Amino acid sequence: MKIARVAGTVVSPVSHPFFEGKRLLLCDLVDTDGSTQGYVIAVDVVDAGVGDEVLICDEGSSARQIFALSTGPIRAVIVGIIDEIS
Amino acid sequence: MKIARVAGTVVSPVSHPFFEGKRLLLCDLVDTDGSTQGYVIAVDVVDAGVGDEVLICDEGSSARQIFALSTGPIRAVIVGIIDEIS
Amino acid sequence: MKIARVAGTVVSPVSHPFFEGKRLLLCDLVDTDGSTQGYVIAVDVVDAGVGDEVLICDEGSSARQIFALSTGPIRAVIVGIIDEIS
Amino acid sequence: MKIARVAGTVVSPVSHPFFEGKRLLLCDLVDTDGSTQGYVIAVDVVDAGVGDEVLICDEGSSARQIFALSTGPIRAVIVGIIDEIS
Amino acid sequence: MKIARVAGTVVSPVSHPFFEGKRLLLCDLVDTDGSTQGYVIAVDVVDAGVGDEVLICDEGSSARQIFALSTGPIRAVIVGIIDEIS
Repeated sequence: MKIARVAGTVVSPVSHPFFEGKRLLLCDLVDTDGSTQGYVIAVDVVDAGVGDEVLICDEGSSARQIFALSTGPIRAVIVGIIDEIS
Repeated sequence: MKIARVAGTVVSPVSHPFFEGKRLLLCDLVDTDGSTQGYVIAVDVVDAGVGDEVLICDEGSSARQIFALSTGPIRAVIVGIIDEIS
Repeated sequence: MKIARVAGTVVSPVSHPFFEGKRLLLCDLVDTDGSTQGYVIAVDVVDAGVGDEVLICDEGSSARQIFALSTGPIRAVIVGIIDEIS
Repeated sequence: MKIARVAGTVVSPVSHPFFEGKRLLLCDLVDTDGSTQGYVIAVDVVDAGVGDEVLICDEGSSARQIFALSTGPIRAVIVGIIDEIS
Repeated sequence: MKIARVAGTVVSPVSHPFFEGKRLLLCDLVDTDGSTQGYVIAVDVVDAGVGDEVLICDEGSSARQIFALSTGPIRAVIVGIIDEIS
């Protein structure tokens, strides 16, 4: 899993039916020194907001299991909001 | 998932039967600053055109589920056209 | 699999129920010359401590099998503590 | 999927029984500007030859499905010969 | 799949039971010009020795199938010893 910072919301009116009613967030991947490097578009399941540091799980089977679906074209999901790293 | 811009169509007359009748698009991966970095060849399911910004899901199980197939040698699929990132 | 050095603990009070009671560790990936490059957040199953060199398996199915679960949104797990490389 | 150019044949007399009778090709990954960057060893199923531009699908499940096998330690397969990108 | 050169043996006395009795090898990934770039820790099934050029399959399902197991936290396996690339 990776650490990321939520940077915005992706609006995709023409998309696969799976994404209807789901929040797609643009998440900047965060390095251990706090700098950002690359990004991922993830589906949100923990009500994360812009600026939050989040835990990203980027794997298809994991993503589908979160929605209790056997199918669905997703790969990255926000699975936690990070409070601190100690 | 990643953001990409459709750059062209791939013509592959000699290919696995799965690809017959499917559109293979060359998609430049787009960074959050708008620059492109790398590419992926993806199967289109949302009628994307050259120049469109699209959402790419690059994972085999996801890709097969979009075609309601249990088999098929694909990995990347265009799952949405992006309108804006806010 | 990759070699990593445990660098800290991730505290994520708002997260998917799967992570309750599990230790999430920040692990710096270690190159063969001993330098670190990148990181991964992994679930610990071998009671690794900060500073330990560990073996990381970064794949969803492997991760779930360690917890004898068919579901769970995880991908990276610490599967061993490395004593030496000879 | 990725574009690659076939560069040679890999000879591996001591290998897993799965590979007996299969052609393993060294494929240079091709960037959109025609330059090569990195490589992958792929199993050929479309009778590609050295110099051909091919379409590579680099995912285990896809690879096994091409051989109608439920098992087999492969990941990358040449699934098409590319004629042009327009 | 990738080409790698075996560089050493990983000793991990505290590890998941799956790894008991298995050889974990440190393998330097080899580029097409012979230089090494990065590494992977792989389980050996072809009795490779230090210095051998080997074929690495880095995918969880493939790795488990080699051991005829439905479970096991592994991802990378040495599936062949490379004789030459012509």
